Amino acid sequence: MAARPTTPSQLQAVIDSYDTFMFDCDGVLWHGDHLIPGTIEVLAYLRQQKKHIIFVTNNATKSRKNYKGKFDKLGVQAEVDEIFGSAYAAAVYLSSVIKFPKDKKVYVIGMKGLEEELEEEGISYLGGTDPTDNTLNSFNLPFEPDPAVAAVVCGLDTSVNYTKLSKAFQYLTRNEGCLFIATNEDSTYPTNGGLLPGAGAISAPLRFSLKREPISTGKPHATMLDCVKAKHNYDPKRTLMIGDRLDTDIQFGKNGGLDTLLVLSGVTHLSDISGPNASPTVPDYVVDSLGDFAVLAKGN
Amino acid sequence: MAARPTTPSQLQAVIDSYDTFMFDCDGVLWHGDHLIPGTIEVLAYLRQQKKHIIFVTNNATKSRKNYKGKFDKLGVQAEVDEIFGSAYAAAVYLSSVIKFPKDKKVYVIGMKGLEEELEEEGISYLGGTDPTDNTLNSFNLPFEPDPAVAAVVCGLDTSVNYTKLSKAFQYLTRNEGCLFIATNEDSTYPTNGGLLPGAGAISAPLRFSLKREPISTGKPHATMLDCVKAKHNYDPKRTLMIGDRLDTDIQFGKNGGLDTLLVLSGVTHLSDISGPNASPTVPDYVVDSLGDFAVLAKGN
Repeated sequence: MAARPTTPSQLQAVIDSYDTFMFDCDGVLWHGDHLIPGTIEVLAYLRQQKKHIIFVTNNATKSRKNYKGKFDKLGVQAEVDEIFGSAYAAAVYLSSVIKFPKDKKVYVIGMKGLEEELEEEGISYLGGTDPTDNTLNSFNLPFEPDPAVAAVVCGLDTSVNYTKLSKAFQYLTRNEGCLFIATNEDSTYPTNGGLLPGAGAISAPLRFSLKREPISTGKPHATMLDCVKAKHNYDPKRTLMIGDRLDTDIQFGKNGGLDTLLVLSGVTHLSDISGPNASPTVPDYVVDSLGDFAVLAKGN
Repeated sequence: MAARPTTPSQLQAVIDSYDTFMFDCDGVLWHGDHLIPGTIEVLAYLRQQKKHIIFVTNNATKSRKNYKGKFDKLGVQAEVDEIFGSAYAAAVYLSSVIKFPKDKKVYVIGMKGLEEELEEEGISYLGGTDPTDNTLNSFNLPFEPDPAVAAVVCGLDTSVNYTKLSKAFQYLTRNEGCLFIATNEDSTYPTNGGLLPGAGAISAPLRFSLKREPISTGKPHATMLDCVKAKHNYDPKRTLMIGDRLDTDIQFGKNGGLDTLLVLSGVTHLSDISGPNASPTVPDYVVDSLGDFAVLAKGN
């Protein structure tokens, strides 16, 4: 049963219990282009209390630099280093978690943001936005795989096509030991206009054809926390994961041994966590909105 | 335990037990561009014995007319009406099995062969080879779905892209009762140069995003036999399915209540059907090759 802190002293007790606060963004800080009331005040209060803030998002189409633009636009203070996207996580997984050899390359199914993160981490890559692979011309064998390719990294790619899928298939079947990495496996991609197929749909053809599951560096997989750990010092026992989705955010916290706080300002409703149809994923705390904590900022 | 007819009288007894012979093609009649010895003689012998012949293939990129070219090139007699491809099966499923209303339309992820079969069966369609949908430009919502679309049909499409996948996703989530049909769900597509992702990889993004399984009109699904039944008279008890794959051909026969004959001239080896690693799918008969029956033709 999740605790429901409501009074200022209960809310302050939650803050006092943790040093690091990991935030999902959409549904927690904002809805699309609309800031959730209290976001700015609560983040400022946490900073004033010397808390460590990390924004953890599955978005893999934007680099952190690019994603920071979203914070800027809504007037929310954030540093690039505080932002941890799943594309960055894939790059960090290669560079820092498994120490991908410098002379090896990645074949990319993904967009500019993923390429930028790989570049930042010093990982060489093929495919991605290369015009050669962005074609609807028929792909035919024979194909000569680059022997230096030792991983396929797959993120959301709105230019996905049969050539990219076929090349990735060739690398994964012909280059011995080739790693299969997915930035995340979200089934859908929320846009202002509604849902579209998500990153998990882009890797689905490979999963199906190869009968092989990728290493996912996005929520809810604990691998993402291994990537965060490579760049940030934090004590899991003193870290709170805050999110609006039970199956990604809250499960992510649980998979990584973090305490979790669910906000009801996003996709999850009270009926999803209580009553006969309650999810088996139970957060440690539930609040209506991050804005509930704003009372502490005001009282200060 | 499968029977292994080898003597002329045992082989003739197999022929005498059936009126209709359904054949898989690749691995049974030919390998790529190489005819399997005896094919022409055995088919001629069956015709002489007044047997009913149906060629059942999962190939969904070619129409039957187009696929007949393959028979002609190799000198194998076949009529268009004897050829039953999974694209044709999808069209027949709509026109004859479920009586798809004439004023409704299909959204196609697939190639010219699938479009031709839909046209032959009088089914209207969108998408497919339409240049508007064959683009790598970013697909954005809002999108106004055509309210007449009542089915998405998905076959192998080497021009698959995010626009087609997104439109199919919109139809399947927004047009109430919209059917989801896959010509087949082969994980790979064998070409002369090797394997590429198959038709099942093309529908995989939709299956994953929608958490929904399509109706498959290809082997091994018995739905394909419902489609054959709509165009051919045959008695399942007097029909033999002949193929080289346990998981598609032989399972297809079993799913449809047909007797089955496995040829070892394709992908299946004797060790796959006997010994400790034997498949649970056991054919009624096993022969090395269709050519084993040629002895009957010669004796005639």
